[in-house]
Amino acid sequence: MDNTYTVIEPGGVTSPKGFLASGVAAGLKESNSLDMALIFSEKPAVPAGAFTSCLFKSGAVILCEDRLKEHLPVQAVIINSGNANSCTGEKGYENALKMSEITAECLDIAPENVLVSSTGKIGTQLPMDKIESGIRSAVESLSFEHGGIAAKAIMTTDTRPKSTAVSVDIDGMPVVIGGMAKGSGMIAPQLQTLHATMLGYITTDAGVERPYFNKLVFKAINRSFNRITVDGDMSTNDTVIALANGCSGVKINEASPGAAVFENAFIEVCEHLAKELVRDGEGVTKFVSVEVVNAATEKDADVCARAIANSLLCKTAWFGNDPNWGRILMAAGYSGADFSPDNFNLDFNDIPVVRNGVAADTSDETLLEAVRKPEFTVRVDLNCGDNSSTIWTNDISYEYVKINAEYHT
Amino acid sequence: MDNTYTVIEPGGVTSPKGFLASGVAAGLKESNSLDMALIFSEKPAVPAGAFTSCLFKSGAVILCEDRLKEHLPVQAVIINSGNANSCTGEKGYENALKMSEITAECLDIAPENVLVSSTGKIGTQLPMDKIESGIRSAVESLSFEHGGIAAKAIMTTDTRPKSTAVSVDIDGMPVVIGGMAKGSGMIAPQLQTLHATMLGYITTDAGVERPYFNKLVFKAINRSFNRITVDGDMSTNDTVIALANGCSGVKINEASPGAAVFENAFIEVCEHLAKELVRDGEGVTKFVSVEVVNAATEKDADVCARAIANSLLCKTAWFGNDPNWGRILMAAGYSGADFSPDNFNLDFNDIPVVRNGVAADTSDETLLEAVRKPEFTVRVDLNCGDNSSTIWTNDISYEYVKINAEYHT
Repeated sequence: MDNTYTVIEPGGVTSPKGFLASGVAAGLKESNSLDMALIFSEKPAVPAGAFTSCLFKSGAVILCEDRLKEHLPVQAVIINSGNANSCTGEKGYENALKMSEITAECLDIAPENVLVSSTGKIGTQLPMDKIESGIRSAVESLSFEHGGIAAKAIMTTDTRPKSTAVSVDIDGMPVVIGGMAKGSGMIAPQLQTLHATMLGYITTDAGVERPYFNKLVFKAINRSFNRITVDGDMSTNDTVIALANGCSGVKINEASPGAAVFENAFIEVCEHLAKELVRDGEGVTKFVSVEVVNAATEKDADVCARAIANSLLCKTAWFGNDPNWGRILMAAGYSGADFSPDNFNLDFNDIPVVRNGVAADTSDETLLEAVRKPEFTVRVDLNCGDNSSTIWTNDISYEYVKINAEYHT
Repeated sequence: MDNTYTVIEPGGVTSPKGFLASGVAAGLKESNSLDMALIFSEKPAVPAGAFTSCLFKSGAVILCEDRLKEHLPVQAVIINSGNANSCTGEKGYENALKMSEITAECLDIAPENVLVSSTGKIGTQLPMDKIESGIRSAVESLSFEHGGIAAKAIMTTDTRPKSTAVSVDIDGMPVVIGGMAKGSGMIAPQLQTLHATMLGYITTDAGVERPYFNKLVFKAINRSFNRITVDGDMSTNDTVIALANGCSGVKINEASPGAAVFENAFIEVCEHLAKELVRDGEGVTKFVSVEVVNAATEKDADVCARAIANSLLCKTAWFGNDPNWGRILMAAGYSGADFSPDNFNLDFNDIPVVRNGVAADTSDETLLEAVRKPEFTVRVDLNCGDNSSTIWTNDISYEYVKINAEYHT
């Protein structure tokens, strides 16, 4: 079995066969930059999706959840940035519905085969005149080449688009997986369901059955988007939608010889996008992998890693190039994870920081060198079991505060 | 029943009869400012205390917990700032023990009657030579007038000392309650036990029995120090110690006619200090009361209020004078509290912001005016029960990031 994949550059949602996309400026953002994106599959695709578990949900999220429950194929996803269509009541839902209807009409497909996403300011009704002309222009500019433009159109406070694609060889045939994502604040995923403030879209030309695809997509999300945190906050609009249109001519199911290769590549696309979200987090200067190993339970590993990754004091210390391992112990200690402080070990990359709960014999200079790097690993060994968890996170800078004091989500 | 109390100005831990205090500079801080404080009661006092539930505990906290379990009276509390004596292993505990022994020797009392607190940098052993001469000089400078100096000596990143005292009339006799506290970062209390990054000391000249005093102190903590949050982090050294020495000649128990007056005054002292901690939080520009009312359960009310109070996005919006109520709904929505978004109401002070889950008919200008104030209330009505919770919190500013990127706890 060959476990490798080839990265396609530039790659995106239009890299797999049969997918078109577009990005247009509909005037929803004050900056007049791109604010509407459309993904269209030539053939109806098998969908899978995960959405925010926040009680306040965007009309778009409610519509997507409803449509996915109906087990219909999906042929288009219409997305707007600049307005979250959230906390907008009944009218908000009706507007999401209308977005799908206009899109369907322009594409000559059924509204039931269209999904909708919105991201941006909360609490304001969508300007439906602008949305309508935006949709029309998005349909007109659909292209096999416009995956990169679509990735730009879904951005809010992101500083750069996030887009990738990989190709794998299944029984001598190429199968492609592409994706795009946006989101740099309100990012805090959780275990069971998707909690990150983000939009993510994965496309593949593999032919799959719905139950297998659902399972694969959730597995991939739990190993990618649900392993990142920027600020511990969760949005009303979080969405990951995956579409498989079968245009490669290759069918894959759980028992296929190529399933493992396909799954690894699928997870790689999600992981790449998830890490990109952290790297482009609001005001970020550091990318930190928090690894907790040898925990008594999976939950212990997870709460411990998340407590460290979400601690404001840890994150500001990282921003300040401050080894300050006391704050990491503090966060582990209050996380709720069960362990003995006397058996606690901590490493920065491969440098011993704490051994058996007290400072290891490492010079301040060596520790400083480790945390000065733009990317490093905080490795916690609880020494009381064999469960582990990794969370990718970043620091909190002046810039984060500035962006969030000034950007009105 | 007269429910009133008289505020004593200036008030502090030496306001009640029979309490002396001091504050000295022992050279533990680079700034050479005051860093050791001593509280001494002429008569052995009944103690009550609450401590961090962080698994990593300072040697001082372990020592206090052990001594309080032994049900012995307490006559002195020796406190140092500048070094937390935390994550310092066996030697850290031995040093805490030694602090109590030196203090006891100088005061000619038993070491078992001395409690110890430490706050400051984590992970470094106490410089015991400096500590020893600091204790000797603290004992020498004990005075009935030095409550204010002691409050200064326990400060770390605090910008001002927190100290207060009130007097109540019990059966025609004055009973005084005084207190001091420190802590401006690593502050996030929880329900059952004390979780705030803080030190708090309450003294009273009332005569009380231990079980009643314990009950009263925990009740007061749950209505004060456990209702504040600055950054969602919890320290290794959190401590509240209360001492009642009986020097007023007034005995109070649960059945006393004056018990309610005494309890209210006791809670007032704790609440005053707790709010002062929030007002002097690191880099604070706003004091925000988050009130959740009409929740289905007490826990729902509490998790909802805490989610809003700890949300980085809410806190940065407040810093930016941004009404941004969407972020408040987002935090309520992911808090875990059970409620119907369609029945959700939100007010800033008495100004309607959200009614039934959508924007109320209030102008942006009016909302802006409310959040521009240095103090305001965020009132959430979940409309599904009769439980409520209030949490006092503040905003997160550039200054908070600066302080925590540069101060090595």
